[in-house]
Formats: sequence, structure tokens, C-alpha cells
Amino acid sequence: MRLATVRTLEGTTRAVRVKDDQLLDLGAADLGELLADPGWAERAAAASEPATHLRGAAFAPVVPRPGKVVCVGLNYRNHILEMGRDLPEHPTLFAKYADALVGATDDVVRPPETDALDWEGELAVVIGAPVRRARGADAERAIAGFAVLNDVTCRDWQFRTREWLQGKTWEATTPLGPHLVTPDELPGGVRPVLPISTRVDGETVQEDSTGDLLFDPVALVEYVSTPATLRPGDVIATGTPGGVGHARTPPRYLQVGQTLTTEIGGLGRCENRVVADPVA
Amino acid sequence: MRLATVRTLEGTTRAVRVKDDQLLDLGAADLGELLADPGWAERAAAASEPATHLRGAAFAPVVPRPGKVVCVGLNYRNHILEMGRDLPEHPTLFAKYADALVGATDDVVRPPETDALDWEGELAVVIGAPVRRARGADAERAIAGFAVLNDVTCRDWQFRTREWLQGKTWEATTPLGPHLVTPDELPGGVRPVLPISTRVDGETVQEDSTGDLLFDPVALVEYVSTPATLRPGDVIATGTPGGVGHARTPPRYLQVGQTLTTEIGGLGRCENRVVADPVA
Repeated sequence: MRLATVRTLEGTTRAVRVKDDQLLDLGAADLGELLADPGWAERAAAASEPATHLRGAAFAPVVPRPGKVVCVGLNYRNHILEMGRDLPEHPTLFAKYADALVGATDDVVRPPETDALDWEGELAVVIGAPVRRARGADAERAIAGFAVLNDVTCRDWQFRTREWLQGKTWEATTPLGPHLVTPDELPGGVRPVLPISTRVDGETVQEDSTGDLLFDPVALVEYVSTPATLRPGDVIATGTPGGVGHARTPPRYLQVGQTLTTEIGGLGRCENRVVADPVA
Repeated sequence: MRLATVRTLEGTTRAVRVKDDQLLDLGAADLGELLADPGWAERAAAASEPATHLRGAAFAPVVPRPGKVVCVGLNYRNHILEMGRDLPEHPTLFAKYADALVGATDDVVRPPETDALDWEGELAVVIGAPVRRARGADAERAIAGFAVLNDVTCRDWQFRTREWLQGKTWEATTPLGPHLVTPDELPGGVRPVLPISTRVDGETVQEDSTGDLLFDPVALVEYVSTPATLRPGDVIATGTPGGVGHARTPPRYLQVGQTLTTEIGGLGRCENRVVADPVA
């Protein structure tokens, strides 16, 4: 199944199932609310009420207000090795707050405080059941599905101090969408093997396979659920492959007016224009 | 004013004002809900409905589910200098998720996965109005009040990777309470100058003054609200003074059965027993 959170003309949102070229209403304000219902999968499978009035509506982030957005640092095997580093024993985790998220076609806001706005195309895992210290099949079952995310980062702020948070959680910088796709639709299932790419004004800057992840989605659910309960709607951003702008010589960063496209085969794509901050 | 979130016998919570030895009902489930009302201060000042049935009730975290818990690294001037470091130009920020919080007299859960559970007594700032890029008086006005927090940390997990999150956000480890005290009640107001101390089984292990903060509460609201909107109920943990267990020779950590007391003059104290994880 393909699910989404779309915006209504009234300024609210609505959870829908995307079936062929139809939108079916899921009776919830967004996918976060839907996933909190333990029977969400059956409810989505049984949906039959056309949401005709929502055709053409813009996508909100698939989960607009996740309780946790957990991000993973270096996690693509090729990229780690090409950087001459050893494979890490544990995943590097850091956070983003929900205010950073935007929808699949929303603008990405370039704040005037940065000179170094960079891309990080990523596979996002969306949680569908509460789990703590999940292992094996329990971790697999906790995965509601996957979406495209771009962990857009202000590199100058990321490296102001040792901790990355302040470069990672700028408001309206992080596309998440367009759809949440359930594992049964994907080659590899809960460990999907899909082409991932990032383009800037059409030029490919990152290209890899999600099968190259060092810590795969199931391993990440196991690891992250050890300290903290993962809850429905929580998001794990699984890390980015090589090709970020900061690692180039000379470095390249996102500029106002550019279009950032993040695509994962089978999941769809986020296509976001970079705009100047309208309020700063 | 002194405000609190207390637990009801029905397993819910209730926001109250603590006035002399009375509890007054504030008509909200918790202080997060209260603070979301722009008229919260007037509403709390006008409260007159005694919540007699809640006398003796346990404290929940003053804000049980903040949208953001933003933590600050090294921020006590004496501690930075005694460690032989230069004063930093920018505050170090990292996150905790809301699931880490417990009330002022709740148990702190020592997970079996750590051998290095450590204390970090801190002054917490609670936000009372939405602000972005707040400066000066706007930042001052955004501070609803202050509470006691202990940023209890699994040092082994904190240092598994460069990013601290995974050592900082263990479930049910972080006391926040007992009261939210408004700035008008405190010497120094929005930059309160108060004695802060941490005790383990009655032995003082940290002792300083919140007046020694390098980045004071107003400066932190200014800084943190630059990347992200701070919203009512959000919490900033302002950093810990010297005396943590990890920096001792030999290191000292929290053990099951010990009592951790975190006290700030004028704000009250959290007194938490360290227990083994009941479910692990």
C-alpha cells in the first residue's frame, strides 16, 4: 500500500491511501494518527471512500509531527570505505525536531544565517507499532513502511561544536514524502534494495542503493529501540550515501532558486525548490 | 507562581497551581496544555478552584511531553576553566526525547545495558510562548519559568560514537520537577542566581550557582530559537556544573538502590531512587 498525508483547502491535513490514480480517505487527520491505531493496516487495506476533493492536493510530510526523528550518521558502506574510515561498530545517532520537516513538493527554506546548506538524500523508516528492545521479527513488524527524506544540513552550524543538532534541525529544511510505502510492495521488504539518488537542478550528485546500508532498517529499529521506546509515527533517517556538497573540492552548497530532487525507486521523489527565508 | 503537573488516581494528570499549602486546579491536563494558552499566566493567577482531591498526589514531569527537550553541553564557567578548556564561542546543543522524562519523586531506571549511569544536575528553562529568532526582551518574555532537571546519562553509550544522543535519551532517566516557578519569584528573574546541588545518598557531589552559567537562560532562548521555533512547553536543560561521576578518579556511577537528589534553591528538589529496569 501507498499512504500519504495531504493538505486540505481548509488548512488541515488528511490521511489517504493512494490506489492507482485514486485517493481513498482513511478517516484520520494524518498518518501519525492512523498509525497510532493498532489496526491501521487492516483499516487502510479496507479503505473504499474516495477522497475526490483532495485530488491534486499538496503533500504534507508523511508524518507531520513525529514524536521522534532519529537520524543516523555515516551508514553507507561504499561511502565509509571511500572515505578511508573503518566500518563503525555502532550507528551514530542524532536528532532533528519535527519543525524541520516539509512535504514532498514544499519549499526548502535556506536561512540567511548559513553559507553552507547541503543535501543528504536518505531512506526514512516509519514506525507502525510501539517497541522497546525489539529484536528480529518484532523489529521487522514494527516497520510500517518507508519514505524519501533529505536530511538537509547547515554544515557551518553542524560543525560549530562537536554535537551536530544545531546544524540539522533548521525549520522547514527536511523533505519527507511523498508516500509511505509498506514493505510488501518493495524488493527486499523490510530491508529494501532500491536505487537512491539526489539531483540539484537535474544534475545527479548522489547515487547509490539502499541495499548498501551498513546498519539496515531492522538493525536500526533494534538499536534505536534499546534506549527509547519507538512509537507509531516515529521516523528513522537511515543516513546518506557519498556525494554530499561539503565533501567536494571545492565544496558545493544549495543556493536560492535551485531545485533539490531526492528519489528512491519504488518510493517516489521529493522535488523541493530552495527559497530564501520569507520571514528572516 | 509555582505550578505543577500532578498525577490523578485515574492514571491521568492535572495542571495545578501550588499556593501556600493549597493546590488550585488550572483546568488543563498538564502544564504543556496550559502554556499553549496565550493567557496562561492570567489564568493561573486567577485560579481559585481548590483541587483538594489531588493533595498528596505524585508529581509528573512539569511538562510531560515537550515537543523539544534541548540540552546544553559544558556551560558552567568554573567547570570549563577548571577543566583547562577555553570558553566556547557557541553553546553545544543536543537532544533528549520526551520518553526520557520522569517526575520529581519517580524512580530513575538504571538500564542493564549500562555500567556507567551518571548524574548531571541542571537548571531547566520552560518556554511559555512561541518564538523564532527571539532577541532581548522577546527572549525574556518567552521564558515561562524554571524547574530542576537531572540530565542522567549512560556515559558508555554517550561515548560509543561522536554524537551523544544515544547516551542521553534512555527511557525514564531524567527527573524534571517538582514545580515550574515563574521568574518574578526568583532572585535574578529570567537570569536566576540560585544555589544548585546534586547529592547521592545524601553526599554532595555537585554544588554551584546558576549565576555561573556562561550562556544564561535568555542567551540560550536567543540561540536555540535561531534554527527552530521554540514552542510553549519546550524545555532547555542549561548544562551541568563540575562534579560529575565520570570525571572523578576513580569514576563513580549511580547504583541500584541509591537516592539521587537534585536541588535548586527557590525551585525545590527532585529526589529519585535508582531502580533496576523492571521490564528488561
